[in-house]
Amino acid sequence: MNAALIKGRLIGVGTGPGDPELLTLKAVRAIHEADVIAFFCKKGSSGNGRAIVEAHIRPGTLELPLVYPVTVETHKDEADYRGPIADFFDRSADDIAAHLDAGRHVAVLSEGDPLFYGSYMHLHVRLAGRYHAEVIAGVTAMSGCWSMTGMPLVQGDDILSVLPGTLSEEKLAERLGNTDGAVIMKVGRNLPKIRRALASVGKLSGALYVERGTMANGAAQRLEERDESPAPYFSIVLVPGWKARP
Amino acid sequence: MNAALIKGRLIGVGTGPGDPELLTLKAVRAIHEADVIAFFCKKGSSGNGRAIVEAHIRPGTLELPLVYPVTVETHKDEADYRGPIADFFDRSADDIAAHLDAGRHVAVLSEGDPLFYGSYMHLHVRLAGRYHAEVIAGVTAMSGCWSMTGMPLVQGDDILSVLPGTLSEEKLAERLGNTDGAVIMKVGRNLPKIRRALASVGKLSGALYVERGTMANGAAQRLEERDESPAPYFSIVLVPGWKARP
Repeated sequence: MNAALIKGRLIGVGTGPGDPELLTLKAVRAIHEADVIAFFCKKGSSGNGRAIVEAHIRPGTLELPLVYPVTVETHKDEADYRGPIADFFDRSADDIAAHLDAGRHVAVLSEGDPLFYGSYMHLHVRLAGRYHAEVIAGVTAMSGCWSMTGMPLVQGDDILSVLPGTLSEEKLAERLGNTDGAVIMKVGRNLPKIRRALASVGKLSGALYVERGTMANGAAQRLEERDESPAPYFSIVLVPGWKARP
Repeated sequence: MNAALIKGRLIGVGTGPGDPELLTLKAVRAIHEADVIAFFCKKGSSGNGRAIVEAHIRPGTLELPLVYPVTVETHKDEADYRGPIADFFDRSADDIAAHLDAGRHVAVLSEGDPLFYGSYMHLHVRLAGRYHAEVIAGVTAMSGCWSMTGMPLVQGDDILSVLPGTLSEEKLAERLGNTDGAVIMKVGRNLPKIRRALASVGKLSGALYVERGTMANGAAQRLEERDESPAPYFSIVLVPGWKARP
């Protein structure tokens, strides 16, 4: 038998936004069938993805924590971030490749959807050329958040813009003024700036702020009413488009 | 007992992009527990949503098809569309309300994610003020499509723009030139225009065309290589952002 045929498969598994019931049937099967479960996490924590799928991991499954070397809120353009994080993805890909070469199927957990702002994609581009790789789509954090609030974001011919809260206030305001619906990710310490940008284009009053969407301790409120205390990095702001409705 | 307490619950259920395994555990439970399954469809068809969840419907569950009065590709700004479609949503909401008043739980199927360009939202805004309403997020068609192709769309601080193919060529080109990743929905007869707009901003070569993403007969190819034959209305074009990678 050709050696290539006995290599393991790489599977990027979207775990959804947080509620363990928002796992897909396909994700549950992939986790159950995996020989190795790999997941990104911070030092001292096994991460949200691992917690979401906990109930579906077979006893005896190998676990491969991929521990971030730096905090995620470091700005990605900074030279002191790029080097270490690229090395980290290279090393993580090597660790996974060793399992694949040994014929083990490796499921890499990815919160939300694997190819939508997820760390998994950095492994995918390093490994998919050499191994059989499959991606299992997941429910994104933004879908989880707007479903939790019950606020429709976009309909019909609306434009939706997904914007990082790291944009400058001027750029944010320009983008927000020039779209129908918007989702602002990476809120964290950018919250005051986001609020000012929304106010400057008259869209603050409709905006919602969501923390830990779909998780047991998740919460949503009008952004106008949110106090100025620091927001978690992964909180989200939702700006409805959807004006003329049939 | 207060009459309000014995009313049924309205549940918008995201059925995902097409692959029945991309249903969430929560959607499966909601379908299994529902007294009534409602779904949008065209005359003479029971629709994709109904087909996706088929295996999970209990025998004896009531079914409420909501049959669109006009084709979806009619332009939504035309007066001869708005009137009939608004009446249709009003009537559909009334039909569902009758079941809710009788104490029945009604699951409304919504392909993809219910509040992301889905028809369900038009029922939600008509009913959620009067009844207990819950939305179960689903995997969007765009997530299904990019997962099927294995092409990461956006990372880090990228901007993603979700654009309707109905925009003018000029507007499309402006938006495409001014974003990182993009998803173009409602391709259909807009395909030649979309191709020209992408070419004009130098982004045609990276773009992928996807038909029936994640379905058994789904297919993806480079948009450059797609012929000029008519595209299905719900086909999608994916434009990768994601240039500088760590």
